[in-house]
Formats: sequence, C-alpha cells, structure tokens
Amino acid sequence: MKRFGMFYKPGLEKVANKFVEKLKEQNYEISYYTSEEKQISDSSDCTLILGGDGTVLKAAKYVSSPIIGFKGGRLGFLSSYTIDEFDEFLLDLKANNFKEDVRQFLEVKELGEFFLNDVVAMREPSQKMIDINVRFGDGSFYFHADGIIISTPTGSTAYSLSLGGPILLPNVNAIVLTPIAPQFLASRSVIVPDHEDINITTNFPVHLVVDGRDLGLFDSFSVRKSSKSVTILRPQNYDFSKSIKEKMGYGKNYFK
Amino acid sequence: MKRFGMFYKPGLEKVANKFVEKLKEQNYEISYYTSEEKQISDSSDCTLILGGDGTVLKAAKYVSSPIIGFKGGRLGFLSSYTIDEFDEFLLDLKANNFKEDVRQFLEVKELGEFFLNDVVAMREPSQKMIDINVRFGDGSFYFHADGIIISTPTGSTAYSLSLGGPILLPNVNAIVLTPIAPQFLASRSVIVPDHEDINITTNFPVHLVVDGRDLGLFDSFSVRKSSKSVTILRPQNYDFSKSIKEKMGYGKNYFK
Repeated sequence: MKRFGMFYKPGLEKVANKFVEKLKEQNYEISYYTSEEKQISDSSDCTLILGGDGTVLKAAKYVSSPIIGFKGGRLGFLSSYTIDEFDEFLLDLKANNFKEDVRQFLEVKELGEFFLNDVVAMREPSQKMIDINVRFGDGSFYFHADGIIISTPTGSTAYSLSLGGPILLPNVNAIVLTPIAPQFLASRSVIVPDHEDINITTNFPVHLVVDGRDLGLFDSFSVRKSSKSVTILRPQNYDFSKSIKEKMGYGKNYFK
Repeated sequence: MKRFGMFYKPGLEKVANKFVEKLKEQNYEISYYTSEEKQISDSSDCTLILGGDGTVLKAAKYVSSPIIGFKGGRLGFLSSYTIDEFDEFLLDLKANNFKEDVRQFLEVKELGEFFLNDVVAMREPSQKMIDINVRFGDGSFYFHADGIIISTPTGSTAYSLSLGGPILLPNVNAIVLTPIAPQFLASRSVIVPDHEDINITTNFPVHLVVDGRDLGLFDSFSVRKSSKSVTILRPQNYDFSKSIKEKMGYGKNYFK
C-alpha cells in the first residue's frame, strides 16, 4: 500500500493534518484528504478514516479498497486503532501486518442504497402503530408494531441490540429482522439466510433510515444482499469478541 | 420410495398398525416397525415416525435416508403431517410430491454424540452458579451463569427460545449460544458461523443434556458441525414460518 485517502470527521482536521504529515515523512502518497463525503474517491490503495463508527459508515460505501478507522478515546466496532495508536499503525503498515475483516453490505433494492449496519423502517411519531408484512422465500411474518429493523451481522450490535436482538459474529451469512415495539409479544429477532430477498410492506408510509440517513417515507421496499463488501484492515491482535466485552461488558470476566 | 421403516412412540401402536396395513394394501414394503429406538435401522428408503418432536429427535440420528413425522393433534416443528392426514400423505407419496427440508446436526466432539436441537450444559441444582468459558476461532466469552445452551437453527425454537433467544430459519448456517440465567445481564444469544469449533470449559462439572438425554457430568466439551444432516420430507405447502405463527402466535396476523 502506497497511496492513501483520508476522510475525517469535521473537528478532527488537526489530527488529520498530523497524520498526513507523518505519512508523507515516510514517503507514502496522499491521494485525497477531506471531511466532505462526496469527495471520497476510490483512487487510493486504502482509505484512512478519522472518527467514530458513524464516520466509517459514511465513508465505507464510497470505496472498494480497504479501510482503516481511527477513533478518539476508546475503539469503536468499526475502528481498528485509537487516534493515539497512529504510530503502532505506521509500524503495522511498514510490516504490512494486518488482519482482513470483511463486512458484507445489504441494499434497499428500490433505492439502490446499500448499508453496512441497518435499515430502520419507523412510523412517524404522530402515526399509530402500523401493520408490517414481511415476506421472504417461502415464508412470511406479520407485525403490528412501531417499525422494524433489517440488519447485517455488523449492525446486530447497533440498534437491533437495543431492542433485544442477538449478537452475530461478523462472518455469519445472515440477515437479522427485529421488530420495534411489537404487539402480541412478538419481540424476538428472526434470523434469515442472507441469500433471501426480504420484502416489506406497511399500511402507512414509514421513514426509511438507512445507516442513519432518513431517506423519506415509503410503504414498500425490499432488502437483499449487496454485491458490495468492505475490507477493514485490523491489527493482528484484533478480536471481535474483545470489542463486545470491552464496549458492552457482555461475556466479560469481571472477577479477573 | 418403496421400503418404509416405522418408529412409533409407545402408546401409538394401534395407529402404527393401521398405517402399516394401509401401506401394505398399496404394495409398499415395511422393513421394520418398532417403538424401540435401538431397532431403528437404515434399511428403508424412508422412516415414518409417529409421535411428537421428541420422537423425531430420537429416530433422526439413526438414519441417513429421509424421514417423515406424523403427530397427533397439531403439527410439531419436526412433523410433516398430523396423524389424521395419513391419507393425504399416501396421495403425496403416490405422486412423489414432497419438499425436502434438510436439517444440519451438530456434535459433541468428545462424546461422538450428535444432536438436531441442542446440548444444554446445566449446573446441578445443589451447585452454585458456574464460571463458563466459551472459546471459538479467534474469540472467547465468559459467563457466570446456571449453564449454557448450544443450539442448531432447528433448536432455536426449543429451549433457547424460552431463554430469550432469536428464531433462526432452518437453513441459516449458524450455531446459537444462549446463556442460562447469566449474571451481569449477559442474557443475549450469540450467533456464530457453523464452521466454528466451540470449546466450553466450566469450573464445576455440568450435566450435558444432548437432545434431551442427560449424558452425565463434564467440565469440558466442544461442539462442532457434524457431517450428518437429515432430510425431512414435507408436503409442498409446508412453510417454516407457518409453524412459528401457528405454534407460537409469533408474527401472526390476529386481525385477519
């Protein structure tokens, strides 16, 4: 890897400047360097992303080459180093000593929009509970609820988890359906294989919030596996379960 | 299919007799016919099973040819017809009009025991909560709990569901880990890909209950995908989501 792009969260410009300097010192090239997501391009061997998981989500969909996230404070799920660990990163880079963590995108078919975490279909606050019909392959479910989340394994530790959903390891080939505030106690998540096309219809239009961006009101949409995935480069000691333990205290040994 | 084996739950002998008669009338052969699981053999083209899901679980592990379950009252998850629908089955058989529903087994490596639903590792009632270390591929979790369930997708609608676990469609290639009464609020299920070997160690011996059979006390065991699967023959209108809706009221439209 020789050429780097850099996308940073507004406010992290100084950090970005310092990183760019250090990279140039070591004779790496910088192909672009921006806080505007529209300027992200696929002209680099690797995109460095400064910010939290939200910043990584924004950048990931614009690139097909690998990404590496740097976060202030503690690690995010999608970041590989903290900002303070940039020198460790430079050593790993010199030795080309990374682990590949491939994450699969799903897409909202009608909108041509893909996502790494989830699409949330949610009633308007002024609206009553809605009827949601979910169809896939040879099956269907009905929910009377505030909405429904369709999530990737990556997104299983985001909003779906807040609603009682399970934790999926990133490499499970599955899609998670989690109803939001369902009537009839139907609050469990349903896990379907990711080769299924999932079609959702509602009796009133719902907001479609795709990886955090509200794309407007729809009463019908479908979700399927995207042809797109993204490779996150990680330090060799990266371990998904470690981030679950550290960030949530789930499955952690508090006695130790 | 020409030769049938038949395994029936004690108490259903009369029904079994009637089924055997009807099959012979139509020139099918009966290779065996028993309520003793040890007598189940793989000498038939298909094994007919009379009883509930527990009876199917018992029989499934002895055969490699397809199975068809018949249950009294309502359908079970693993049964394809009710006992009253035997004539419908005969019509489907004549037309060879079935849908194949393949279910994957997991196995407890050290015991050479495979299972279609789950292995439950549970403390003795007189024992305090136990320390459970779960290791797989590049990750690990720790639980302080009464026990843990390792379940197939098929078993996700059994004991794991009672403990808050999600519903997996049968064809998801995954393993479900659900802690039993965990401390530190770690009550979510973890879903791992089924190519992972899962190793469990506990600080005190726990009962290993494999598909309902208590195999004794162990403080270490591993679970992996078995080379074994079983094909359940279903009527063409079979739909897994229908059985979830009918048996649990989950995802069902009560307004209709």
